[in-house]
Amino acid sequence: MSKFDVVGIGNAMVDILSRCDDANLGTLDVDKGIMQLIDMPRAVDLYARIGPAKEISGGSAANTIAVIAALGGKTAYVGKVKDDQLGHIFAHDLRAQGAVYETPLAPSDAADETGRCIVLVTPDGERSMNTYLGVTEHLGPDDINEAQIADAKIIYLEGYRFDGPESHAAFAKAIKAAKAHGAMVSLTLSDPFCVERHRDAFRQMIVDGVDVLFSNRVELLSMYETEDFEVALTQASHEVKILACTHSEHGAHILSGGERWHAPADPVEIVDATGAGDAFAGAFLWALVREYPLEVCGRMGCVAASEMISHIGARPEANLKELFKARGLL
Amino acid sequence: MSKFDVVGIGNAMVDILSRCDDANLGTLDVDKGIMQLIDMPRAVDLYARIGPAKEISGGSAANTIAVIAALGGKTAYVGKVKDDQLGHIFAHDLRAQGAVYETPLAPSDAADETGRCIVLVTPDGERSMNTYLGVTEHLGPDDINEAQIADAKIIYLEGYRFDGPESHAAFAKAIKAAKAHGAMVSLTLSDPFCVERHRDAFRQMIVDGVDVLFSNRVELLSMYETEDFEVALTQASHEVKILACTHSEHGAHILSGGERWHAPADPVEIVDATGAGDAFAGAFLWALVREYPLEVCGRMGCVAASEMISHIGARPEANLKELFKARGLL
Repeated sequence: MSKFDVVGIGNAMVDILSRCDDANLGTLDVDKGIMQLIDMPRAVDLYARIGPAKEISGGSAANTIAVIAALGGKTAYVGKVKDDQLGHIFAHDLRAQGAVYETPLAPSDAADETGRCIVLVTPDGERSMNTYLGVTEHLGPDDINEAQIADAKIIYLEGYRFDGPESHAAFAKAIKAAKAHGAMVSLTLSDPFCVERHRDAFRQMIVDGVDVLFSNRVELLSMYETEDFEVALTQASHEVKILACTHSEHGAHILSGGERWHAPADPVEIVDATGAGDAFAGAFLWALVREYPLEVCGRMGCVAASEMISHIGARPEANLKELFKARGLL
Repeated sequence: MSKFDVVGIGNAMVDILSRCDDANLGTLDVDKGIMQLIDMPRAVDLYARIGPAKEISGGSAANTIAVIAALGGKTAYVGKVKDDQLGHIFAHDLRAQGAVYETPLAPSDAADETGRCIVLVTPDGERSMNTYLGVTEHLGPDDINEAQIADAKIIYLEGYRFDGPESHAAFAKAIKAAKAHGAMVSLTLSDPFCVERHRDAFRQMIVDGVDVLFSNRVELLSMYETEDFEVALTQASHEVKILACTHSEHGAHILSGGERWHAPADPVEIVDATGAGDAFAGAFLWALVREYPLEVCGRMGCVAASEMISHIGARPEANLKELFKARGLL
């Protein structure tokens, strides 16, 4: 029996969430709705110019793992923080949620700090992310514990983590270990600009061995360089066992083995969109491991995504199982 | 013309807010509804045993100053943080709210860290606070800038800050400067156990020169060592120009110059009681400086308190002036 339902690998970071008007996004030179990588001087400058903020642990794959753990799934996470206050906050929040987190800390005298994401939330609930990677960029093959991967049913790879020098080697090692021990490999495309940066490498990884692909509509269009959503869905579905593609308020499309399902979005007032996709993937994987029908996996994903966008921050707050029960999914 | 409406002096700290069942409070050996001082080993142990948390800048007087600044008042704050990540978060959030904050940082090689308060929020919205003071305990007379005090209409002293070796001298210096330049002196009793620890010193300070006294019912009973609320109110009102005493869902009593008013509480669902008293004092002082009738000062205080308990964290989120207008107070 596997020790872990899912082992996630990604960028470990703390979110710095602040409300911001659309006009101020322009003043701050922040592009709306996407993730931009920034260096430390820009992080310091931007932080000095935003309003009061809240710090809540984040990181895309870590958010996904937190959702699975909150649902009672057995999880582990791999991602690098430093031995500093933000690093301790990140580690605490993940372990307190029930995940195993054993990645060695970057030492306190490391040049970089724990990564952080300055998230500006506009009145429409959309989030614009500005990421200082810090030490999380230095995750390498040595941080991948093959025994842990061997003990997993599914590994979950965060596309964002490709923005680092040793990340390709780390992912390759994880995939190899997963394949050797019969674990499924899942990947999220993370962000359209992330796809731009790594399209060829992602494509190779997908063709070589991704079993479950998560993306949203814009990412999938970018991945397959088409404007036609149906073309992108069809092409992707031929390359992976399971495709789960979210389409914001239109819900999610699940394609597998020539079949197709649509999961409607769970209506909710958008407070903060941060983490919606992460939550979808978390609930989907939790359900997939438990062998729920793929349509139910997708519907649970949509419910978890709605819970996430109903509050500030990208970690779950409500009892997700109760929400599933209330909708007849459990 | 004074440069500052209010200069606040208090414990500078970041709140670590986590949800907790009542049963778990006992397991964690935390007393409900009060503030307990803890040392670093206890802070580390307690933190390791609580659930996922959010970090939001706090500190009682700093919360009060943040409310006044959010209302457009001119403010400065005095309180010590370290040159570490939590210290930078605290400083950012206060300055981003519009307050002047110039207290020298404790150096990065100081033995203690920036203070923090582990706040456990039970399902009833009550908060149980566990405070590691860290470097904020070392605030001393040298940190009091007499020119800044001289430029203030009111100084606001946080009772909690008496838990430190040089605090009495710092407060005495601030009071002396205030009196020399015609600034009013306000004090909050902070917490019933804080009153227990410092009753004589508080009493001396009140009799010697506190103009505006903030407290809640339990603190006032402790201060005057009586079980009779009316006796405590009467006695306190004879010792200060203005007494503003909150009484949770029963609102607040304002006594001054032989007159008395009652401000009803603004009904709200309690999400997190953290900062309710701080917000009351902030709105009250903002209104007092603008010479609103004392009853209106009290009513604005109650509205601000309700806003604060309607969300997690002790810093204002809604537009308080709009709330005042909606209730015909502006």
